[in-house]
Amino acid sequence: MDVKAYMVDVGEKARQASALIAQASTEAKNRALIAMAEALDLARDKLAKANELDLENGRNNGLDSAMLDRLELTPARIDTMIEGLRQVASLPDPVGIIDDMKYMPSGIQVGKMRVPLGVVGIIYESRPNVTVEAASLCLKSGNATILRGGSEAIHSNQAVAACISQGLSQAGLPINAVQVIKTTDRAAVGELITMPEYVDVIVPRGGKGLIERVSRDAKVAVIKHLDGICHVFIDRDADREKAVNVAFNAKTHRYGTCNTMETLLVDEAIAEFVLPTLAVKFEQEGVELRGCDATRRILTGINAATEEDWSTEYLAPVLSVKVVSDMDEAIDHINKYGSHHTDSIITENYTRGRKFITAVDSSSVMINASTRFADGFEYGLGAEIGISTDKIHARGPVGLDGLTSQKYVVFGDGHIRQ
Amino acid sequence: MDVKAYMVDVGEKARQASALIAQASTEAKNRALIAMAEALDLARDKLAKANELDLENGRNNGLDSAMLDRLELTPARIDTMIEGLRQVASLPDPVGIIDDMKYMPSGIQVGKMRVPLGVVGIIYESRPNVTVEAASLCLKSGNATILRGGSEAIHSNQAVAACISQGLSQAGLPINAVQVIKTTDRAAVGELITMPEYVDVIVPRGGKGLIERVSRDAKVAVIKHLDGICHVFIDRDADREKAVNVAFNAKTHRYGTCNTMETLLVDEAIAEFVLPTLAVKFEQEGVELRGCDATRRILTGINAATEEDWSTEYLAPVLSVKVVSDMDEAIDHINKYGSHHTDSIITENYTRGRKFITAVDSSSVMINASTRFADGFEYGLGAEIGISTDKIHARGPVGLDGLTSQKYVVFGDGHIRQ
Repeated sequence: MDVKAYMVDVGEKARQASALIAQASTEAKNRALIAMAEALDLARDKLAKANELDLENGRNNGLDSAMLDRLELTPARIDTMIEGLRQVASLPDPVGIIDDMKYMPSGIQVGKMRVPLGVVGIIYESRPNVTVEAASLCLKSGNATILRGGSEAIHSNQAVAACISQGLSQAGLPINAVQVIKTTDRAAVGELITMPEYVDVIVPRGGKGLIERVSRDAKVAVIKHLDGICHVFIDRDADREKAVNVAFNAKTHRYGTCNTMETLLVDEAIAEFVLPTLAVKFEQEGVELRGCDATRRILTGINAATEEDWSTEYLAPVLSVKVVSDMDEAIDHINKYGSHHTDSIITENYTRGRKFITAVDSSSVMINASTRFADGFEYGLGAEIGISTDKIHARGPVGLDGLTSQKYVVFGDGHIRQ
Repeated sequence: MDVKAYMVDVGEKARQASALIAQASTEAKNRALIAMAEALDLARDKLAKANELDLENGRNNGLDSAMLDRLELTPARIDTMIEGLRQVASLPDPVGIIDDMKYMPSGIQVGKMRVPLGVVGIIYESRPNVTVEAASLCLKSGNATILRGGSEAIHSNQAVAACISQGLSQAGLPINAVQVIKTTDRAAVGELITMPEYVDVIVPRGGKGLIERVSRDAKVAVIKHLDGICHVFIDRDADREKAVNVAFNAKTHRYGTCNTMETLLVDEAIAEFVLPTLAVKFEQEGVELRGCDATRRILTGINAATEEDWSTEYLAPVLSVKVVSDMDEAIDHINKYGSHHTDSIITENYTRGRKFITAVDSSSVMINASTRFADGFEYGLGAEIGISTDKIHARGPVGLDGLTSQKYVVFGDGHIRQ
């Protein structure tokens, strides 16, 4: 197979479909999403068979159990995909919204209309449910999508793709609006990220290695986050109960998510009043603490944190703890070691709260709230395609709006420049 | 000189300054802008001497007269720079504006705060006034700037840079917030566009060759437009007087600007009623018309347009004219041959007006208005750093907002994820 020729063909078809899908009515897009949900529901046997084939190959190829777990399409996961499609259908359509329409001194009326980006390339690893999630968000926002899933999920993804095509076709929309790459050749990724004439933006979802490679080599814009090294800073004027509850929740609500706290910073004036309580709770939960010298004078017996700990995303029941002399030291630490994802201050102090949210350079900054809230659903976006830690185009949880651009709309009555 | 080491040093200083300038008060930034204006006013002699040196070198090096004209800092151009600084000082500060703050079902309050991008690299050609324009917009939006002007303007740019530094210093702001590259070595550009650790976005301003090179090689985001191939489409239901006035203005108001019409499209049902009138006006103005076969049946004696004409940005008193069978053909032509910059329909027909602004994929779409309105001042942005024909991050005229990003701000009262 000539991978380059195949990808150019896919790209051309996506570009053609994007012009049609960009103008599809909200009703047609929603009809397609519901039809996809129904097609998935009717294809449960086929999906299970295709997935079993992937799982069998995976076991034969020595995939580890975490990988096999992500690969598995259980009935509950199929339910979640179906539910997800219905939810995206129920979200408001961003395309065509005109904001800020106002008259200018010249008499023209100027506003901004939300428009799709065009063609979105999604590169992801083993989880086949991403196929549906990503395709549905791109479709609702009027974009054509090219999906490239992990090679170990090829049969599952093709089975899901068949349901997506059926949904598009039933709604009278071009089936090339969502294309799932048919080859497992890794060269396809290299082509996909270097075709600016056919692809407008790439969203890589997966491990850090994948995202680094895509970011380095892409010739188009990439919406991504690499790390989630999130902090909670307990200020000297924190309410101690809020401090303990939020810090505990930010670490233990889920360990493997990018908005989980990885480092706890505590002002030295309050450290001895909150750290012992937190240490007991973390110990009960089986969270290993690694502290700076000052922390270890309060919590004797915990391990020492190394320089590397401050920039490590554990994604596990491990937490680094540092006592700081004041908020400025906390802010410097966050901006230096953090990943510009999500950071929260616990304080009752008005001035320091204001300063923290201004000075911390992260995609989400919080006062008295758990970092775990950094999420498209919690922010009211409905769903998210990822959380961007970049500043260009989209930052923080990226929902339907992040998959759109805008154009200026000008209404005149024969107006000419003087 | 070790260009790489020099640029790394410039980059590090810019990154450090960006953290300070991002939090500078509106009042301090405005004070710096006014102080720069005063410094320029007092430095007129020095500016003239430095500029004369550049002009002399330019003449010795055989620069053409257009290039020498762009290079010249006349007293009137210095006045314009001073006036520009005062205007930017009077614009509202976008930094820190919090929009869309609302309560979520969980009880947290979520909004979006405008924040600077960080460090903006500007690469431009001979016009020294760009130094002030770009620096002032970046400063007001809280960004640090690294400016790399044309080597032929090095003395003028350094003289301007001294005034900028003085203004920053008088306002108590870090002078490294605006740095003008001191070397004329072309390798500096290569370094500047490949330092994502120090530079967040590049804005190239100049000829197509420069912009293509920067876009191809940059490792950071680029805000740019390559071409301005703008269209006016005269629909069959156009008001004939509006059609003639707008089409004439869009071509003849200024020839060298990117929002000037380069191709006129006319519905065949109205062509014979508007083209002869327009042809007379264009002839009086010395505009050469190049037409398709149908156009030449109405306007006998004009030259034939070649395939190349449809995708040529003349920037000159030349206009290509095509008669189309209907609006769909016009839209297809615009999306195929245009540069996604600015396109206008002249029509009294409600349905076709709506369809045109939806289906034309350009950064500005207009009804019954001259393409010449596509401009930051005319859109109420106050000033612009350029006009983006990309869809990522910023599209259309890019003002202060386009030089900012946003972060999510979350206010809680000890809220934890359930």
